[in-house]
Amino acid sequence: MSLVVQKYGGSSVADAESVKRVARRIVDTQKAGHEVCVVVSAMGDTTDDLIDLAEQVTPLPPARELDMLLTAGERISMAVLAMAIQAIGAEARSFTGSQAGVITDSAHGRARIIDVTPGRIRTALDAGHIAIVAGFQGVSQDTKDITTLGRGGSDTTAVALAAALKADVCEIYTDVDGIFTADPRIVPAAHRIPRISSEEMLEMAASGAKVLHLRCVEYARRYQVPVHVRSSFSHQEGTWVTDAPAAEGEAMEDPIISGVAHDRSEAKITVVGVPDKPGKAAEIFEIVAAAQINLDMIVQNVSAAATGLTDISFTLPKTDGSTAMEALTRAQSTLGYDKLIYDDQIGKVSLIGAGMRSHPGVSARCFAALAAAGVNIEMISTSEIRLSVVTRADRLDDAVRAIHTAFGLDSVEGEAVVYGGTGR
Amino acid sequence: MSLVVQKYGGSSVADAESVKRVARRIVDTQKAGHEVCVVVSAMGDTTDDLIDLAEQVTPLPPARELDMLLTAGERISMAVLAMAIQAIGAEARSFTGSQAGVITDSAHGRARIIDVTPGRIRTALDAGHIAIVAGFQGVSQDTKDITTLGRGGSDTTAVALAAALKADVCEIYTDVDGIFTADPRIVPAAHRIPRISSEEMLEMAASGAKVLHLRCVEYARRYQVPVHVRSSFSHQEGTWVTDAPAAEGEAMEDPIISGVAHDRSEAKITVVGVPDKPGKAAEIFEIVAAAQINLDMIVQNVSAAATGLTDISFTLPKTDGSTAMEALTRAQSTLGYDKLIYDDQIGKVSLIGAGMRSHPGVSARCFAALAAAGVNIEMISTSEIRLSVVTRADRLDDAVRAIHTAFGLDSVEGEAVVYGGTGR
Repeated sequence: MSLVVQKYGGSSVADAESVKRVARRIVDTQKAGHEVCVVVSAMGDTTDDLIDLAEQVTPLPPARELDMLLTAGERISMAVLAMAIQAIGAEARSFTGSQAGVITDSAHGRARIIDVTPGRIRTALDAGHIAIVAGFQGVSQDTKDITTLGRGGSDTTAVALAAALKADVCEIYTDVDGIFTADPRIVPAAHRIPRISSEEMLEMAASGAKVLHLRCVEYARRYQVPVHVRSSFSHQEGTWVTDAPAAEGEAMEDPIISGVAHDRSEAKITVVGVPDKPGKAAEIFEIVAAAQINLDMIVQNVSAAATGLTDISFTLPKTDGSTAMEALTRAQSTLGYDKLIYDDQIGKVSLIGAGMRSHPGVSARCFAALAAAGVNIEMISTSEIRLSVVTRADRLDDAVRAIHTAFGLDSVEGEAVVYGGTGR
Repeated sequence: MSLVVQKYGGSSVADAESVKRVARRIVDTQKAGHEVCVVVSAMGDTTDDLIDLAEQVTPLPPARELDMLLTAGERISMAVLAMAIQAIGAEARSFTGSQAGVITDSAHGRARIIDVTPGRIRTALDAGHIAIVAGFQGVSQDTKDITTLGRGGSDTTAVALAAALKADVCEIYTDVDGIFTADPRIVPAAHRIPRISSEEMLEMAASGAKVLHLRCVEYARRYQVPVHVRSSFSHQEGTWVTDAPAAEGEAMEDPIISGVAHDRSEAKITVVGVPDKPGKAAEIFEIVAAAQINLDMIVQNVSAAATGLTDISFTLPKTDGSTAMEALTRAQSTLGYDKLIYDDQIGKVSLIGAGMRSHPGVSARCFAALAAAGVNIEMISTSEIRLSVVTRADRLDDAVRAIHTAFGLDSVEGEAVVYGGTGR
């Protein structure tokens, strides 16, 4: 008997009818001979509604209480799902994150899982029950307070439980058919990727692909949990994220590029006229780091010899833009720069592929494609299996299409799909 | 420093504005020099909405999962209330029933409190925090599952916490000004009772007065918790439910009758033509008891000597009517009765007063008043401090008014109030 962990996002359980549909799917999985543990997100817009309620009371809800509030969302969906399963004749029991043994640190709103002790889940499964677990939530090891895991939290819960239960697979159900070579809303010729390595998936997620959250992929990679991303609206195979060797009959040769990701969520700050002295760049980034901001790309211009001054540009999430600008403005006299430029009209396109390691010339082919499409390159960064380019925001779609075509990713049929987020 | 437990019902925290108003009241209590522990119900119609959701999924939601679902309601209200308090500068921490140490049996939907171990609440109070506790919920001692306490549950939580914390007073906030000598919607001359013994309050609650639930009063009586029932919409004194000796200056003489309660929630079943043999009545009531139904009043007619048959009537909650009729119908051949009559057009009026012990003639005065008002008496039952009479439903209001006047309870001014339920 194999053990399957299934995760259903908010759009899969948006209302009573959806919940019943998901319940049938879960029961079918059990009838096919599997033990089933289900992780569920809050129904539809519940989380947003709860945040609205909090904001009606106070503009800055305290983090501990916001976590207590938001966890009511999964409590509702998991109980209703357990009811729907029992209504069609199988046994189900719902468990909060705390009851399921999801132990976290105390960082409310963005807690990290420290340990998973799924004793009650194991007992429920041994009794032949389907275990339903609230995603996105845990309990702090130190304070015993309720915590939430932040964006992508339910996916992370599912993978963490799959690892702790030694599940055979963690199925992430969403409203799209899997991971695509590019966003089909931008590239109609994009196609589903049947199989991708965790390393590539990590780069995809970090580069703006929204179907799987970065932390979930990191967790799956560390604990070697095979993840199957698929649609809750069909029975088609989705995308397997796994490092296991490909089975007989599957494609033997990796493509150079697995997919093209894009990201519109970043902004660029340029610090103009920085004295070109050792340690100045470090000072700038210490200030930004002290404000708890994660930078993405950094470019330092060649110093103009005449002035001894240089410009330093970096990208960061737009949501951190004002915090970073304030921190740098406060430090202007210490840093001695001339001025700050804030630019939120940028886009980033990234090519990801393990094949880049063995195929030189990827950057050249990419830059040529962008040049042919008339797209200007503003910043460049690379990792071993990724090449990212910053463009003007209004040229991003053209850039994605040009690269997708240049690397032979356009499918013949062009499957019609909708590419969206997974909720959380 | 004294410790105050305050309980706010769903109507007191119906929306964000109400929550802010209640938050100010709580902070004012702390500023007046008290430690404050607050028990809160779900906001407005939340519980009904959650029940609706469950019923969309299944007509018979499993009790364990229904409890899991419903407890989301208090989780929301307590977190939002804690936020509102912190927004005006005081420190507050919310706790689930489980975190607050409310330990119950495993009877989902109607769990009884076995123990209260409020260690985390005590710690929060010692730190100068206001503790907000979810009403209506606890955790099962045996299964560690989440339970709910059933109707009146939040009041019971408040009194149980007050007992465990050795609070000086348990304030039950509601949308009326206290306990009244009768329902002011029926008797405009009814007035607020400033002080009532727990014994009288028990009889009032058991006889249909809705402001305080029976279990809460039982708990308060057993642990000698002084309860102050008052309005969350004013700062007036409400009704003290306490057995402590009256302070100097308060009324020295108890009235014969403290109040007149009424109840429209019962029905009457008559078993016609029962063989008048020893043990027959016991057989009937064993069948009803086996169906988990609580009877209220019972009357057995004098047997007609010619036939050797008698009629037995009893009252029970209307909600149990069909269950009881089915159980009795199934047993017709065993019991050997002729037929069953179901009558849900009855009402019950009850006079309650500790003074009845020392004042004979209460029944005579009551019956005379009813006769003068032209109200027919169908059944009668009495306890040491209560006299109850069943009438036709459409004569109940007249009966309540006639008795209220006959015992001198009509106030001179006739305070204008609204008399309603407390939610749960």
